[in-house]
Amino acid sequence: MGNADYVCPSTNVERAHPVAVAVPPPQSFFKSLKASMKETFFPDDPLRQFKNQPPSRKLVLGLQYVFPILEWGPRYSLEFFKADVIAGITIASLAIPQGISYAKLANLPPILGLYSSFVPPLVYAMMGSSRDLAVGTVAVASLLTASMLGNEVNANENPTLYLHLAFTATFFAGVFQASLGILRLGFIVDFLSHATIVGFMAGAATVVCLQQLKGILGLDHFTHGTDLSKKKPRLFWISAMAPLTSVILGSLLVYLTHAEKHGVQVIGQLTKGLNPPSVMNLAFGSPYLSTALKTGIVTGVIALAEGIAVGRSFAMFKNYHIDGNKEMIAFGPFSRSAVNFNAGCKTAVSNIVMALAVMITLLFLTPLFHYTPLVVLSSIIIAAMLGLIDYDAAIHLWHVDKFDFVVCIGAYIGVVFGSVEMGLVIAVGLSLLRVLLFVARPRTLVLGNIPNSTIYRSVDQYPDTNNVPGILILEIDAPIYFANSSYLRERISRWIDEEEDKLKSSGETSLQYVILDMGAVGNIDTSGISMLEEVKKITDRRGLKLVLANPGGEVMKKLNKSNFIDTLGQEWIYLTVGEAVAACNFMLHSCKPKSATTESQKWSDNV
Amino acid sequence: MGNADYVCPSTNVERAHPVAVAVPPPQSFFKSLKASMKETFFPDDPLRQFKNQPPSRKLVLGLQYVFPILEWGPRYSLEFFKADVIAGITIASLAIPQGISYAKLANLPPILGLYSSFVPPLVYAMMGSSRDLAVGTVAVASLLTASMLGNEVNANENPTLYLHLAFTATFFAGVFQASLGILRLGFIVDFLSHATIVGFMAGAATVVCLQQLKGILGLDHFTHGTDLSKKKPRLFWISAMAPLTSVILGSLLVYLTHAEKHGVQVIGQLTKGLNPPSVMNLAFGSPYLSTALKTGIVTGVIALAEGIAVGRSFAMFKNYHIDGNKEMIAFGPFSRSAVNFNAGCKTAVSNIVMALAVMITLLFLTPLFHYTPLVVLSSIIIAAMLGLIDYDAAIHLWHVDKFDFVVCIGAYIGVVFGSVEMGLVIAVGLSLLRVLLFVARPRTLVLGNIPNSTIYRSVDQYPDTNNVPGILILEIDAPIYFANSSYLRERISRWIDEEEDKLKSSGETSLQYVILDMGAVGNIDTSGISMLEEVKKITDRRGLKLVLANPGGEVMKKLNKSNFIDTLGQEWIYLTVGEAVAACNFMLHSCKPKSATTESQKWSDNV
Repeated sequence: MGNADYVCPSTNVERAHPVAVAVPPPQSFFKSLKASMKETFFPDDPLRQFKNQPPSRKLVLGLQYVFPILEWGPRYSLEFFKADVIAGITIASLAIPQGISYAKLANLPPILGLYSSFVPPLVYAMMGSSRDLAVGTVAVASLLTASMLGNEVNANENPTLYLHLAFTATFFAGVFQASLGILRLGFIVDFLSHATIVGFMAGAATVVCLQQLKGILGLDHFTHGTDLSKKKPRLFWISAMAPLTSVILGSLLVYLTHAEKHGVQVIGQLTKGLNPPSVMNLAFGSPYLSTALKTGIVTGVIALAEGIAVGRSFAMFKNYHIDGNKEMIAFGPFSRSAVNFNAGCKTAVSNIVMALAVMITLLFLTPLFHYTPLVVLSSIIIAAMLGLIDYDAAIHLWHVDKFDFVVCIGAYIGVVFGSVEMGLVIAVGLSLLRVLLFVARPRTLVLGNIPNSTIYRSVDQYPDTNNVPGILILEIDAPIYFANSSYLRERISRWIDEEEDKLKSSGETSLQYVILDMGAVGNIDTSGISMLEEVKKITDRRGLKLVLANPGGEVMKKLNKSNFIDTLGQEWIYLTVGEAVAACNFMLHSCKPKSATTESQKWSDNV
Repeated sequence: MGNADYVCPSTNVERAHPVAVAVPPPQSFFKSLKASMKETFFPDDPLRQFKNQPPSRKLVLGLQYVFPILEWGPRYSLEFFKADVIAGITIASLAIPQGISYAKLANLPPILGLYSSFVPPLVYAMMGSSRDLAVGTVAVASLLTASMLGNEVNANENPTLYLHLAFTATFFAGVFQASLGILRLGFIVDFLSHATIVGFMAGAATVVCLQQLKGILGLDHFTHGTDLSKKKPRLFWISAMAPLTSVILGSLLVYLTHAEKHGVQVIGQLTKGLNPPSVMNLAFGSPYLSTALKTGIVTGVIALAEGIAVGRSFAMFKNYHIDGNKEMIAFGPFSRSAVNFNAGCKTAVSNIVMALAVMITLLFLTPLFHYTPLVVLSSIIIAAMLGLIDYDAAIHLWHVDKFDFVVCIGAYIGVVFGSVEMGLVIAVGLSLLRVLLFVARPRTLVLGNIPNSTIYRSVDQYPDTNNVPGILILEIDAPIYFANSSYLRERISRWIDEEEDKLKSSGETSLQYVILDMGAVGNIDTSGISMLEEVKKITDRRGLKLVLANPGGEVMKKLNKSNFIDTLGQEWIYLTVGEAVAACNFMLHSCKPKSATTESQKWSDNV
């Protein structure tokens, strides 16, 4: 390479690849704003299939988008119908006792649990996007309602007010979910991580179990339904039928022995007939409106997050997408879906069959529940709750990612020892803190050369890499934002200090170049650009040369607009670290007496 | 390369560089926890200089760290002293009228403004880390005090209560700043971006100007002091002396014409003497304690952020560090520093000189202020405030980074039309939203081959790149966290859909490989790993092969612990995109009849 003594060449270094780092073609402000809005609110690009279609086809597709039933309806066959009927009856046999139990869990009249398994599934069958989700009362939603409203109003002392507030909260939950969907804010649910939900569910389940144990009074025989069905799909019939069997056997036993007269609490009178319109039960004028609103929003978000997570895991088996935004418009999710899936459901018709079964129950069979002992309902609840405590998931979190484990345990402890909201706030707060800390304290990695290549990688990850004498190569591992610009300036200065100290004590070539690998810097803001300008001044003052490698399109655009490229010099920005090192080495050897270059000569041969 | 027809080789592809992607050497949990704690709370590594030193030297360094005066004291020369005396007298001539004006701005007795320019500079001279910062009353802090306390207590109706609350708020501001410093939480200030501060200051200045215009009653002759000094450092004498000159001329004029008897408001009687201890003025038992606390915290943070920003910009000229944590312990910041700097200050002795000048004023010269007309004080305030409205910075923000501009305008509008706290909440909220959106909606870039190289870069940034037939290369530009894992799964599926549609319509080779470039993925959590597992299932079902390129150390560690590496196959993880493409191309050509490979043959030649 360079053979002139003490003659520093100009910056026109010959480059291995003559490709300059490009500033992306300019884009109008509104075009890029539109693109980023679309990515933020319509990441699923719902209108994609409408492109380049005639208007009539667009109408059909549009209707099918809003009502997926129109999509699978025409292709519906007798074989599908058989499978759906079996699945529908199976989930109904689970839904009826669970509906009654969960209504009790929310301190509401048991009949409401049956109503909720009747209308919503019909709506979901027409509008929802998952074929496997079974819709109905959700244990966690019931728990939240009981826990949050129960703080304000005692359900036993003031049942009518409590009932009205529960209706109002449910109404708000629905409105909130629907508006999230219409406003395309499905991504809010994404902020509840898997770890949060595991901890939150386990905490909620623990609270419910402890509450129900009071009702059981020492009786500890209950089915492990949900667990079973997870581990051995073949046995799902047993687990699916267990609650109904318990209810039938329990009721028969009470009826035959007249145990209700000897202190065993039973459900008692249930109204026959379909649900009356519940608009009258909304209590917007109540002084507890804010409580109802808060309960509704928390219930809505949690139920949605759970439902989307459940629906998604089934979607994985069949490779179709659950649309968070559509879920919210169509209303709710349900963990009973496992049974529906295992029972072989083909389409959402299974939900319709279930609704019909519940309707028949409401019309003709409610008197049969008169003798059902409450202890059976408590057992059903506890069995379902124990299925929600996912030890394995928590152990997996500890093993793979300690911080996720902390989030999970934070949610659990918050729910068990504080309240439902506190658990949620702790978990979401910790999760956000992690994201912010990732940005506020990005890692800076020293890169070294992988032997016999022009590849540069972290010396921590690849201990066999070699240092390049006289050149410090740093990789910045996050976008450069206001939140980390001070930190990065400090940290880069410190890396330079440390490198100079190290070189001084070992008597090697002194430091000449600092290369920043910007490959992982996704974006930069004005504070970040100021930081780079300051680093440039710091290196200038120390007689070092700052070199950038591989800045991305977004970063180049900003650097260009702020004139930092001119300040640094276009010729000090390289496409790869390898090219930057080659150029630096070339300069390094050309600027020094030949005798000093021997020890780093091997480098110029490698690169 | 491969020449067998229809024979698919096993995955033992010959690789250009025989270096496998490494999992970093395992590190104990507590060791890595300790390292990340240190990076978070001690980014400046304050104990670095203590390493490998004898105990006596450690003691000296420790004292010097707490009291920087011990560091520069011994090296102090007569020449330094001369420069510092001139600078000190200059800033005193600015500090005295500004102190009186800002005290009036906070609705406090004018004498308090002088006290505040007397004690704090002495403390800062011994403990602070900046040599240029001039310490004293801060306009913005005064404004905040007036605005936040004024909502609760009317200063004119209840001056004693107001005074006590102001003292209490200031006490809390000091305690809050000091505890941030001791707890090493200096990084909280980093969350106030430059854009936030520009907007916030301008908003506060607008509010103050509008308030003061009432006092001026149509008089509109005021100096543009701060502006001047910024633009032409040579003229700083004029701007620095302007306030004092105005005060002297104004007072003389009133004294000679006895205008105070004809409706011109003057300061009136000022107590002579040094400040009395103000402990008695703290009002912890007041019902307004929470207001005082809130005011103290907001004032503390804002004053600190401004001071650190000002100190830092001067530090840039001289290349020493301002230590956020030390600033907070030593007490605050001040925009008058520009004058101090321009006046040629050498060390913090200039602050001591200023304090002495203020002391002399307090002891002997206060009667002279009796006749100073309030309108002069208003003019001084407005002049200083106009200097805080930084149009150029706002225009620069718009030009370089639209989002930063929105943050700035948000802060401005919040302060002007809402309140100080609202402006702060809007700006910080928007800034955090941006960081969260960066993580929640990371960019995924399609990469193409830069001609005649093995380098792959974004096709948006480098329009000359070529697609590789049959291979889709995607770069993920952010850490994969719970907040973006759903989005990324959707987005990657969509990229695959779009690529397949495009290939189908153009009749080219069908898609065979999906390469994910993980170079910019700094970290991954358990939700992110689930996402990768799901993407693996999606690609498997479509008959595509998923390949990872260049995962970093942190990512490899997690993938290894969660067994994803085994699920994917270690042989499908490559060190660079180039190597991954070479391996895919090799497989692609070996698995097909030779006739089909012609169109992509050129690729195997390139790579």
